[in-house]
Amino acid sequence: MKKIEVCLSPELIHLFDLKGKTVVVVDILRATSCITTAFAHQIISMKPVATLDECKVLKNDGYVIAAERGGQKVEGFDIGNSPFSYMDPSLLGKKVAVTTTNGTLAITKSLTANNILIGSFLNISALAQRVHDLDQDVVIHCAGWQGSVNAEDTLFAGALINLLLASFAISTDDATLAYSLYLQHKNNMLDFVLQASHAKRLQAFGINKDIEFCLKIDEYPIVPYLEGTDIII
Amino acid sequence: MKKIEVCLSPELIHLFDLKGKTVVVVDILRATSCITTAFAHQIISMKPVATLDECKVLKNDGYVIAAERGGQKVEGFDIGNSPFSYMDPSLLGKKVAVTTTNGTLAITKSLTANNILIGSFLNISALAQRVHDLDQDVVIHCAGWQGSVNAEDTLFAGALINLLLASFAISTDDATLAYSLYLQHKNNMLDFVLQASHAKRLQAFGINKDIEFCLKIDEYPIVPYLEGTDIII
Repeated sequence: MKKIEVCLSPELIHLFDLKGKTVVVVDILRATSCITTAFAHQIISMKPVATLDECKVLKNDGYVIAAERGGQKVEGFDIGNSPFSYMDPSLLGKKVAVTTTNGTLAITKSLTANNILIGSFLNISALAQRVHDLDQDVVIHCAGWQGSVNAEDTLFAGALINLLLASFAISTDDATLAYSLYLQHKNNMLDFVLQASHAKRLQAFGINKDIEFCLKIDEYPIVPYLEGTDIII
Repeated sequence: MKKIEVCLSPELIHLFDLKGKTVVVVDILRATSCITTAFAHQIISMKPVATLDECKVLKNDGYVIAAERGGQKVEGFDIGNSPFSYMDPSLLGKKVAVTTTNGTLAITKSLTANNILIGSFLNISALAQRVHDLDQDVVIHCAGWQGSVNAEDTLFAGALINLLLASFAISTDDATLAYSLYLQHKNNMLDFVLQASHAKRLQAFGINKDIEFCLKIDEYPIVPYLEGTDIII
């Protein structure tokens, strides 16, 4: 039986051997929810980059540029980090370059994996099917908040474990914790996340509508994944 | 209201500002359970050191020397890391020097705190009272297993939170996770811990009796704490 591990923060990812494995990168609020939404609205690729400067110069190459820092859109960029901003029909067929506080870091710290998939509640069942089809050990890599563990990414890890347990086995205590958290809160996920500190921090920016949307299950049956330096579908 | 934070691994402790706070160091299997047991059996001090060499030379200064690596006693040392080995009447009045895989690292990474207390299920109520009396924000620092998060330290963090909630407030998602885990497993703690990966690893050394003992609540109403370079009571 293939194994499931969970990395609760990018600060812990060096403890995991990713070679030959599938990594699912998760930043529920909101990077990976945005990426999933963007591909559901037919962008053709998304380039995750580490810095604002790297992102900005890609405007000259025809990219739509998206940047978030500390939960807010950065001035001078086309879009921020709300999934609703990716529902704009003008993005159809566009390439997007994106930099975020936590999500892009988790992607760049996963590069030694065999496959890097983008995970969110919005595409969780399609994602579970893809992980199953790839038939490799899987590491669920939670982006967290500036290095700290957060509630919603851990909750998602537990929810994904729940869908994988027929053919995968939990192999580390981090995965046990995430699965326990999911079992306890599966019937009140939105309330639980709204009470958590990262969500409270974001609520200061008036994004309750975003949070509610990012907790929706199976809106989009697609699985964005990293190919070279770009996310495609 | 004072705040409760939980650090799930020493690899994350740099994300916490410990100044002016109480830190509770936790390594349920088995360093902090051993330290608590040792003081209950009237050793006079315990010096945590990082390396086997540092520990060994202290033998010449009259210390009883204790060392564990990878879950097992190290050859050439007086004792290993079983709480039962500290119940020996010959230790009465002795100074002990100790080095362990995870617990001593968590102590040395907490040195900027105002107070460093030793936590285990064996002394949890006395500990909660002391934390309350000190009336500072508290960080529960889980030692984990070689950097990874483990189930039993996180469970303990949740159990301690449960005792503190009348006068302290959860302030981070790590603490929310730990408290959720405790609420889910408070009536089956031993079964839950025995299923977890770190405990399974230790069971290979035949220490089920140790694990069962380390989950006992309030055996010893004492609170070892760090004073300078030594733990005292």
